[in-house]
Amino acid sequence: MHAITMSGPGGPEKLNWTEVPDPVPGEGEVLVEVAAAGVNRADIMQRQGAYDPPPGASPYLGLECSGTIAALGPGVSGWSVGDEVCALLTGGGYAEKVAVPAGQLLPVPKGITLVQAAALPEVTCTVWSNVFMVARLRAGEVLLVQGGSGGIGTMAIQVARALGARVAVTAGSKAKLDFCAGLGAEILIDYHTQDFVTEIKRATDGKGADVILDNMGGGDYLDRNVAALAVDGRLAIIGLQAGTKGELNIAALLVKEGTVTATSLRSRPLKEKAAIVAGVREHLWPLIAEGKVRPVIDAELPMRDAAQAQRTMDESHIGKVLLTTR
Amino acid sequence: MHAITMSGPGGPEKLNWTEVPDPVPGEGEVLVEVAAAGVNRADIMQRQGAYDPPPGASPYLGLECSGTIAALGPGVSGWSVGDEVCALLTGGGYAEKVAVPAGQLLPVPKGITLVQAAALPEVTCTVWSNVFMVARLRAGEVLLVQGGSGGIGTMAIQVARALGARVAVTAGSKAKLDFCAGLGAEILIDYHTQDFVTEIKRATDGKGADVILDNMGGGDYLDRNVAALAVDGRLAIIGLQAGTKGELNIAALLVKEGTVTATSLRSRPLKEKAAIVAGVREHLWPLIAEGKVRPVIDAELPMRDAAQAQRTMDESHIGKVLLTTR
Repeated sequence: MHAITMSGPGGPEKLNWTEVPDPVPGEGEVLVEVAAAGVNRADIMQRQGAYDPPPGASPYLGLECSGTIAALGPGVSGWSVGDEVCALLTGGGYAEKVAVPAGQLLPVPKGITLVQAAALPEVTCTVWSNVFMVARLRAGEVLLVQGGSGGIGTMAIQVARALGARVAVTAGSKAKLDFCAGLGAEILIDYHTQDFVTEIKRATDGKGADVILDNMGGGDYLDRNVAALAVDGRLAIIGLQAGTKGELNIAALLVKEGTVTATSLRSRPLKEKAAIVAGVREHLWPLIAEGKVRPVIDAELPMRDAAQAQRTMDESHIGKVLLTTR
Repeated sequence: MHAITMSGPGGPEKLNWTEVPDPVPGEGEVLVEVAAAGVNRADIMQRQGAYDPPPGASPYLGLECSGTIAALGPGVSGWSVGDEVCALLTGGGYAEKVAVPAGQLLPVPKGITLVQAAALPEVTCTVWSNVFMVARLRAGEVLLVQGGSGGIGTMAIQVARALGARVAVTAGSKAKLDFCAGLGAEILIDYHTQDFVTEIKRATDGKGADVILDNMGGGDYLDRNVAALAVDGRLAIIGLQAGTKGELNIAALLVKEGTVTATSLRSRPLKEKAAIVAGVREHLWPLIAEGKVRPVIDAELPMRDAAQAQRTMDESHIGKVLLTTR
């Protein structure tokens, strides 16, 4: 098969479409013939040498894909050769074939094409595990999404709205904020011209956000996120784009009975990933099949052009960027 | 009645035993004739002017008491005049009488004297709400208690052991560590001579603590507590003795899928306090009645000597310091 390999850490030019041996599905795994793979910011960090794959993972980039089951490893039940699926991966999506633990497979939802389905696993699993399993967003509460127009943001807005929450977003342009409004976001904050702490308080009678889904992490974002939390607020950090460290105002957190969590999907044990995938299938797949939630896709490029796709991720985009094998 | 009043913020000499009007129980409240009150660090902060009572609270110090119900306000059921109780208070325990919301009352457990019962409400509610409700400590997990020999620490050790967890403690002397060992702590760390991060890792095959109950808060404690957490670890901050701010290593927290919470009992709404008290009655009261968990009391002083009792709290003590009215 072919896969995108790296000739060392560095820029997009280090990515090459190369002939490599096929993966072999192990115990409890299936072999998926890849139709499309999603591009994630973590792929870019891995390319730069800043995010090595965990032990046992595929050496190739790619944390999600869609495709057709080509073979079953030992001990797999409930899936058949020929099934159209999408999958959460620990690596290896930028390839024509990938071996996947069966617990990380999802069927392609009704009304979604096989290629589009590649846009779903990372964003649905990230949103479900953080906003709902960890931060327990409830109907009537306010969710603030930092970076509302990206893949995770566009999914978070739709799911939170569908489940009865009020959604605030930050984004870097009027066009992006307008797009978020179209998905159901009600409180729109341009981070170039507005202070999100001031704006979220103004829009919530001074209360703040019950849950914040944050891809920024450190720098001054940690302090500002804590300031933007409501009483009993939960800050769920999923990215470190503003820094790996920040000053935590513990006294402010204590007054609010607040919670700060930081998670990543990739390093979790198989069993936890399977539990998250099962939750997504139970709670979010019906919303997608009913048309209440849809994947937002900015661009589809041939997989051999992964370098160009990653450049698009680094520049401006709305929703997901996909790589297709056909 | 008499109560300890303050002639302004400052040292213990500002505390005076003074004649004041009796409190009147409001809707849903009972009037308790106080037998004893517990001394808490928060009382000392309030005396110093650093922790004002929340709106509507009694102006007098004291977050817990035991005593006898002297009168019922309107709308109270399930309690009778003459019942012996202990109670979680929002203030007013340093007095001969106090009005208490009925949801914050607990019966005096079997095998405990009326005076001893004053040592229970704050420590049982703090341990139950933080270690079990928020941080969900499970049997087989490791709990690290910062400051194991204080009132909260001595209760946390016993409850965690009774529910099947392994307990590590820090304390400042061999005598205090020996006392903690007698209550069931297995991993003993002298914070004057040992680094708790190194010691907890050594004692857990490098894994760290699943839950940390921390009264230190900021300074370098935040960073070291995060370093001492295991994967999926939960840091529950309940005090700020080392500072109100600290640097949070978000990248380290993210790798561990970690959680940081900061809480205080006093500012919580009535309904939440009642839920915590109900949980304590259901889960911890039987352990006390069975003799598996007992209040640890360092000293009992007449309430008029509250100044001396607070000095004892500021100096060295093991367990609780109580003020008695008789």
